[in-house]
Amino acid sequence: MEDLRSLPYPIRRFNGQSSERLDYVTREEPLELKLEYFSKASKHQTSIAVTMRTPGDDIDLAHGFLLSEGVINSFDQVEDTYFDSPNENSNTLVVCLKQGVEFDKELLLRHFYTSSSCGVCGKVSLAAVAVHVPQFETSSFQVPRSTLHQLPTNLRQLQSEFRKTGGLHASALFDTEGTIYRVREDIGRHNALDKLIGSFRSDNLSNIRQFGLLLSGRASFELLQKAAIVGIPFVAAIGSPSSLAIDLAQEQRITLVGFLSRSNLNIYCGERVCEH
Amino acid sequence: MEDLRSLPYPIRRFNGQSSERLDYVTREEPLELKLEYFSKASKHQTSIAVTMRTPGDDIDLAHGFLLSEGVINSFDQVEDTYFDSPNENSNTLVVCLKQGVEFDKELLLRHFYTSSSCGVCGKVSLAAVAVHVPQFETSSFQVPRSTLHQLPTNLRQLQSEFRKTGGLHASALFDTEGTIYRVREDIGRHNALDKLIGSFRSDNLSNIRQFGLLLSGRASFELLQKAAIVGIPFVAAIGSPSSLAIDLAQEQRITLVGFLSRSNLNIYCGERVCEH
Repeated sequence: MEDLRSLPYPIRRFNGQSSERLDYVTREEPLELKLEYFSKASKHQTSIAVTMRTPGDDIDLAHGFLLSEGVINSFDQVEDTYFDSPNENSNTLVVCLKQGVEFDKELLLRHFYTSSSCGVCGKVSLAAVAVHVPQFETSSFQVPRSTLHQLPTNLRQLQSEFRKTGGLHASALFDTEGTIYRVREDIGRHNALDKLIGSFRSDNLSNIRQFGLLLSGRASFELLQKAAIVGIPFVAAIGSPSSLAIDLAQEQRITLVGFLSRSNLNIYCGERVCEH
Repeated sequence: MEDLRSLPYPIRRFNGQSSERLDYVTREEPLELKLEYFSKASKHQTSIAVTMRTPGDDIDLAHGFLLSEGVINSFDQVEDTYFDSPNENSNTLVVCLKQGVEFDKELLLRHFYTSSSCGVCGKVSLAAVAVHVPQFETSSFQVPRSTLHQLPTNLRQLQSEFRKTGGLHASALFDTEGTIYRVREDIGRHNALDKLIGSFRSDNLSNIRQFGLLLSGRASFELLQKAAIVGIPFVAAIGSPSSLAIDLAQEQRITLVGFLSRSNLNIYCGERVCEH
């Protein structure tokens, strides 16, 4: 069976000596997302997104994306999802909304006027974001600092594809004991988180709020926004956060930790790190 | 004067000991890009992109983006560029195209149907890209391998903001001697490259083809595409390339090096690395 997530390429490697060999490289392919919806009692279909992603978990990616971008409020609003061709390598996925679920293409377009930069979207102000974030019950999630320091090692042990290609971002959920509950990897950091969120489509989404979110790289505004929309109370990043990510975490009462390693961490806001 | 690129935040740091201090964090702010153009002899204005970027070099970013995404073919097609408010912290930039320069909003929209993932755009096939890449003269650019190994160190010495915040991507141009000619940094890897390309707007753009491109992180399809459109013959990445980036480099005869460090490098394609 073809490997969905990496492909071998012939390379010349120099590392003290020179060799010709096959090297596994992370696959990057476009996924076009089409939405089928009802408007004025008739069915419509429209292309709403093209993302460069690593193939695999595509349906999770699509559902997670629709939820974390506010196109749907719950996974129940999706009737059906299918690839538009019987070819298993199809790069076009059609998501059908249930009759009665409203979809405003103009509104979406306004959100998605976008550029080719990282994590971009049209929701340009914190105020605009706050509107979309539901009110969640206060969480009692707390993690000992010593447990946090173990997370990067725990994650790396589970990142099978990263080890193979060195080219993937990971999003993972961890519990208060430091156990990694679930990991998703993708060449795009936002896709990894959307895949993780979408993996709850056959589960109760509120369960996601029992976990903290571990990011293998940097914490941008967009990632914090996706975490906020599903009510994740704690975000720990191995890389650095951005200014806007900290501002959003503060506003949404998310504890935000950055530069997490075995011996270091910075707490940018929140009270969910304890010392015992 | 306020620092455009980083802001101090109060943090708690744990690194063997615990301290409360101010830490500099990379700024991330939205930049909305509006285009003013003539159609049927009347003037129109439309919002075409919102990107999350680190403030600074915004006009370079806008011009580089328009060129590398194929909205304009040369910097000469721009009549004027201004912030839409006298406030120097404005996050909306208006680019006015010269009369006679065609702009097809529908076509652009099709390109930019996009998601919140990294480096996304609507140009979903290599074939679609190839159309936009002009034919450039064959370049004689060649770099000794020993010179390449010095580039990461040379870059790090020039990355002033990265040292301060640890949160920025860099795109840099280097010559055949390994000298870094110009660096641009941004929280988004694509923005850093657009800023670099846009910095040639008051120069002869063809000069960019005398250099190789050094990327501080991974080499994605979108970055290779931007390099191809301006005719850069050599791309060296400190991180890994994606499968599609290699495919594009092969097609466009760009030499692609990845995992570049003082002692290692992989050559994925191309003949521009020499041993003397």
